[in-house]
Amino acid sequence: MAETPIRLGMVGGGADAFIGAVHRIAARLDGKYILLAGALSSTPERARASAEALGVPRSYDSFAQMAEAEAARDDGVEAVAIVTPNHVHADAAIAFLERGIHVICDKPLTSTMEDAERLADAARRSGALFMLTHNYTGYPMIRQARRMVCDGQLGDVRLVNVEYAQDWMTGGAEGKQAEWRVDPARSGAGGAIGDIGTHAYNLACFVSGLTLDRLAADLDAFGAGHTLDENAHVLLRWQGGAKGMLWCSQIAPGNENALRLRIYGDKGGLDWSQEDPNRLWFTPLGEPKRLLTRNGAGATEDNIRMSRVPGGHPEGYLEAFANLYTEAARAIHAHRSGDAMPEDLLFPTLEDGMDGMRFIDACVRSSRQDSAWVSP
Amino acid sequence: MAETPIRLGMVGGGADAFIGAVHRIAARLDGKYILLAGALSSTPERARASAEALGVPRSYDSFAQMAEAEAARDDGVEAVAIVTPNHVHADAAIAFLERGIHVICDKPLTSTMEDAERLADAARRSGALFMLTHNYTGYPMIRQARRMVCDGQLGDVRLVNVEYAQDWMTGGAEGKQAEWRVDPARSGAGGAIGDIGTHAYNLACFVSGLTLDRLAADLDAFGAGHTLDENAHVLLRWQGGAKGMLWCSQIAPGNENALRLRIYGDKGGLDWSQEDPNRLWFTPLGEPKRLLTRNGAGATEDNIRMSRVPGGHPEGYLEAFANLYTEAARAIHAHRSGDAMPEDLLFPTLEDGMDGMRFIDACVRSSRQDSAWVSP
Amino acid sequence: MAETPIRLGMVGGGADAFIGAVHRIAARLDGKYILLAGALSSTPERARASAEALGVPRSYDSFAQMAEAEAARDDGVEAVAIVTPNHVHADAAIAFLERGIHVICDKPLTSTMEDAERLADAARRSGALFMLTHNYTGYPMIRQARRMVCDGQLGDVRLVNVEYAQDWMTGGAEGKQAEWRVDPARSGAGGAIGDIGTHAYNLACFVSGLTLDRLAADLDAFGAGHTLDENAHVLLRWQGGAKGMLWCSQIAPGNENALRLRIYGDKGGLDWSQEDPNRLWFTPLGEPKRLLTRNGAGATEDNIRMSRVPGGHPEGYLEAFANLYTEAARAIHAHRSGDAMPEDLLFPTLEDGMDGMRFIDACVRSSRQDSAWVSP
Amino acid sequence: MAETPIRLGMVGGGADAFIGAVHRIAARLDGKYILLAGALSSTPERARASAEALGVPRSYDSFAQMAEAEAARDDGVEAVAIVTPNHVHADAAIAFLERGIHVICDKPLTSTMEDAERLADAARRSGALFMLTHNYTGYPMIRQARRMVCDGQLGDVRLVNVEYAQDWMTGGAEGKQAEWRVDPARSGAGGAIGDIGTHAYNLACFVSGLTLDRLAADLDAFGAGHTLDENAHVLLRWQGGAKGMLWCSQIAPGNENALRLRIYGDKGGLDWSQEDPNRLWFTPLGEPKRLLTRNGAGATEDNIRMSRVPGGHPEGYLEAFANLYTEAARAIHAHRSGDAMPEDLLFPTLEDGMDGMRFIDACVRSSRQDSAWVSP
Repeated sequence: MAETPIRLGMVGGGADAFIGAVHRIAARLDGKYILLAGALSSTPERARASAEALGVPRSYDSFAQMAEAEAARDDGVEAVAIVTPNHVHADAAIAFLERGIHVICDKPLTSTMEDAERLADAARRSGALFMLTHNYTGYPMIRQARRMVCDGQLGDVRLVNVEYAQDWMTGGAEGKQAEWRVDPARSGAGGAIGDIGTHAYNLACFVSGLTLDRLAADLDAFGAGHTLDENAHVLLRWQGGAKGMLWCSQIAPGNENALRLRIYGDKGGLDWSQEDPNRLWFTPLGEPKRLLTRNGAGATEDNIRMSRVPGGHPEGYLEAFANLYTEAARAIHAHRSGDAMPEDLLFPTLEDGMDGMRFIDACVRSSRQDSAWVSP
Repeated sequence: MAETPIRLGMVGGGADAFIGAVHRIAARLDGKYILLAGALSSTPERARASAEALGVPRSYDSFAQMAEAEAARDDGVEAVAIVTPNHVHADAAIAFLERGIHVICDKPLTSTMEDAERLADAARRSGALFMLTHNYTGYPMIRQARRMVCDGQLGDVRLVNVEYAQDWMTGGAEGKQAEWRVDPARSGAGGAIGDIGTHAYNLACFVSGLTLDRLAADLDAFGAGHTLDENAHVLLRWQGGAKGMLWCSQIAPGNENALRLRIYGDKGGLDWSQEDPNRLWFTPLGEPKRLLTRNGAGATEDNIRMSRVPGGHPEGYLEAFANLYTEAARAIHAHRSGDAMPEDLLFPTLEDGMDGMRFIDACVRSSRQDSAWVSP
Repeated sequence: MAETPIRLGMVGGGADAFIGAVHRIAARLDGKYILLAGALSSTPERARASAEALGVPRSYDSFAQMAEAEAARDDGVEAVAIVTPNHVHADAAIAFLERGIHVICDKPLTSTMEDAERLADAARRSGALFMLTHNYTGYPMIRQARRMVCDGQLGDVRLVNVEYAQDWMTGGAEGKQAEWRVDPARSGAGGAIGDIGTHAYNLACFVSGLTLDRLAADLDAFGAGHTLDENAHVLLRWQGGAKGMLWCSQIAPGNENALRLRIYGDKGGLDWSQEDPNRLWFTPLGEPKRLLTRNGAGATEDNIRMSRVPGGHPEGYLEAFANLYTEAARAIHAHRSGDAMPEDLLFPTLEDGMDGMRFIDACVRSSRQDSAWVSP
Repeated sequence: MAETPIRLGMVGGGADAFIGAVHRIAARLDGKYILLAGALSSTPERARASAEALGVPRSYDSFAQMAEAEAARDDGVEAVAIVTPNHVHADAAIAFLERGIHVICDKPLTSTMEDAERLADAARRSGALFMLTHNYTGYPMIRQARRMVCDGQLGDVRLVNVEYAQDWMTGGAEGKQAEWRVDPARSGAGGAIGDIGTHAYNLACFVSGLTLDRLAADLDAFGAGHTLDENAHVLLRWQGGAKGMLWCSQIAPGNENALRLRIYGDKGGLDWSQEDPNRLWFTPLGEPKRLLTRNGAGATEDNIRMSRVPGGHPEGYLEAFANLYTEAARAIHAHRSGDAMPEDLLFPTLEDGMDGMRFIDACVRSSRQDSAWVSP
């Protein structure tokens, strides 16, 4: 028997916003959600126009209004996606969590540590669920990589290197996507390190299972008048003795979304690139390199469960994003029925969000202290 | 103002069918369709169980019953997706076309030339639209490739080589996916040549803009007792003097869905692989090779229009499939409103389906005549 | 104790010739030969000037003069490299073979079947050795591939596809390299099929161990006034039932020396590309793809024996070419001492050259008969 | 008129040494040298046996004996290749430089800064030439990359990232190659950072043209009882404001000799990998990526001058190494004749060796100070 689709609302994500459209497709792809309400813009007219253009039945002028009204309806939204600039995340999420409405929130968690703490308090008090869309964790090969590390196929992990390179800020910050990202009031203290560095850091933690002990960061901006970092080189020391490095950049010409993770243990290595996400290199020491594929030979259960189509028919960014929405749907269905959460359920949580905030904060602190080692 | 979603039905595609699930995701991805009715299996109990499991409101025991009932409703389906084994395509499509219901049909068109002719007649008599899901034509880089050839960037086309290699039949035909494909009564006279060779042929025609003049085919089956081809090597002579070759195989270990198209003219070349679909090699003669990307630098309008997310965030098979559904939605919306069809509208049609049938037939005829040249 | 270097002569290969320089480097690379005499050009002045420029001690006006004079010296050359245009191969080789001087000859064997037969007769009558530089057989990964097929790692071979694409003739035949290659009197009846098709064919036979039964070829020239083929598509039927296809082209923009061999059996596949020669894909059915490397994990003895430097430090075309010279040196050393030939000695022979000639001839015959099946 | 080959001697490089064999092939490849004398091992019997096995006419028991004897001969060696463990470099090089014999020395320059200064003094006092074999600078695409940066095709350089990963020490240090490399007395204070980190650093400087201002290094050894680093992560600050990062490791399973250099400016980027050395990615901002090839379309003069065979026929490690020997030969020929040095002559010098020593020293100092910024 098909589950009734989850009634979903959205905060932010007006008609021309990039990430809002992504969330809508991700919610729709597996048919688990139906989008019924929105406060799609901070400007009421734009919010209404966007709702009409997108066919969203109930439009609100603000997230506060929406939270109150939807909570009062019997058929109000069960979950809300928050896809605003970073500085709005906390207040919006709290408004819904306090009313028992599940929250699916874009990353990074918030723009300040204070907001993050407030949000964490609200989440702990609420019975509702909170998921953070560190979407790269939804790739099937990333699930397989995590499984393989966990199962000891790399042996003791010694090195975790991660990088995320883009080029779209090379010529300066222009356009709607760039504008709020270079404004500390809306974006937070981190520029590239907050926008994409947190993704890289989250992915490294997600797959390696390691916890960061200390970091030493060198952040820099090259554009005239830019205050937030456009490039960051970070040394990493993981608890237990592993070492690593993180590089993120938005000024590296020729890179679109070049997120790459490499993990090496004393028995083998893994190498994955987001731009070629259906493949994962596994290099057991002393044996030929092996190319694992999504839903292909040698796929783990996680890999297969997260796949929709056979190997060789590429799945991409939207499918990975949708995998997180579908994980959230499984959690919400369990919550609805009072069942225990599925054992294999796995999505980024508030705690991952707090980790990300501490990581940004630590990078900024270290860089201001001339790259001194700091703890996150 | 958002268009009202198109009311969609489905024939075939029960709960465990591969291609039916793909069509449902493709229909859902851009939010242009709502699936309301189905005759999801030729076995009524399975049809009902599938409808329930998938949340399809109206279930029918047969496509005939469905066509009649839906045509009689004011809110009956406007379009139907046909995703059965090949031998059912014609009768099902005709039942809906005759009632003015648009048809979105999986490939190949039918299992016999006779069926193809009957279907073509029905389509010509009907005011309804017919689209064939040669889904690889929905990839943005394929649209760009077609545009570049059309704009003369390769000069005069001299060579068109295409191949589609899989390995899943290497050990023999097992399982539901294989079973009907090796049965001439359900699949038609072509095995691999019908299942994947037609895709390769269609793609070569779609991008090159050429028409095949003659072919010489060598079809073979290696599995004990197999009657349909598992491998085909085909020489191609295109009208106007270009040459080429087509190789398709379902017994080439290590190949998942390795569809690759290469076109060479006197001024440049193109090279595209389905397993890496967001990239297209363009090699202007005497200049460095250029790697074009989906929605990236150098993207044509077609490429951009067919993209949802920025370059470097991979889109894949389902997005390409959804692009065809969205093209069909644009056509259906125009049909609804009586508007002219959009000028840039482009999807595989009945005529492409007929071409594919003639291609299969010609390959089989040639191979039976010891690879003599025959016209399709 | 180091062997005394082999005294080498050269016919053809004047100062600006491409392949002559390659042979000289190949002979020098492992220190097994010393170049002492040459008839480096058919024009005596050029021959002398080339010898002086290259530091070759003894220069002759013609190969006939050289053969006679060197055979009369106690310290005359033991072996001669023949690197002239094709139509000179036979007479030159015969002149040296008749005097007991070993011959290392560039491919194809000759320009006509008649010449090939004459040369074969001379070789059979001579006690001297004959090696044909089908240089791609000298790549370590090709040796490993051959070994793996031979050891049954692919199971029964069903498919052998090979291609060799270049682009340098796209705009027409210009320059010294092109000039004689498009002249049937000097090149023979094959254009691209003789120049590079024979390499592809030889490689397919060398690795697969199969013998060709029949072929059907479609040869074409696109340049104005060209009489020799610039492009060939060939269907292959191997003895024992395997099928295949050969494509060679000199008019495919973007291809430099894109020689690629793929072999598929019922247990696995192999895929190798000359432009990335230190890697070999091995795809055992139902297991992850494996990337084997030169002198790396999983290397066979042949691979290791043919390597000079560790894996990851690329070896290339010249090293592969030198491997053949070094194989020839091992044979010549054994011949010198009257020892049995080493068991693992392997280089292309006269018989391979005859096979190549029959292949060219069969392609031309088939193409003239509208691609009828012919036996080579 | 061919130049008389340069009379060459060798110190170190006995029969089973890796790098000695490489130097011998590199010296031989272009026919510019003849190896006449050697002190091939520190053990006299091994030296003699190696000389005999390799066919080196004059064998000495020590480099001191060799320097004295060869300097006294009219036909003594003109140049000597020093391929011993690092701690012997200085004394050996000084012995020959003081006698006016040119030195071609393996890297790193020496094992201690004191030795490096002594050697530098001797070189400055000598009229003889000194070349350091930072062999990766001999790759044609690296020459092109340097030229492109120099010509401003990247604009202002902002980022220089370089890495060199191997895996052969993952399981511990075994065998002759490993033994002296993990002994500080023979290798110096740097482990991986001295063995391969200096190569990476040298390459970054060579191509970018930048000078390092400061670095912060985190060096680590994971093997039980190992004192020298096996892995190093280094933050780089270049003079003029560019940033960067260097990673080198000998414990990263799956990496053979994965040296990769990426440079980004405000107008474009470059990306080169040693394991695929015939290709260079050039990514002008806002344009499609371009793949440049050795001796192919778009090749610079440097690229062409350093190539022996056409594009698509791969050249590799030995050819790049030989390019340095051939550059040295040009210098020695000019020195012989008293001519000015060729304008385009370019090979790594003593000053590059001193830079490398200061880099190792700075990395070790920084790491001991908990990754503080230090100047090299």
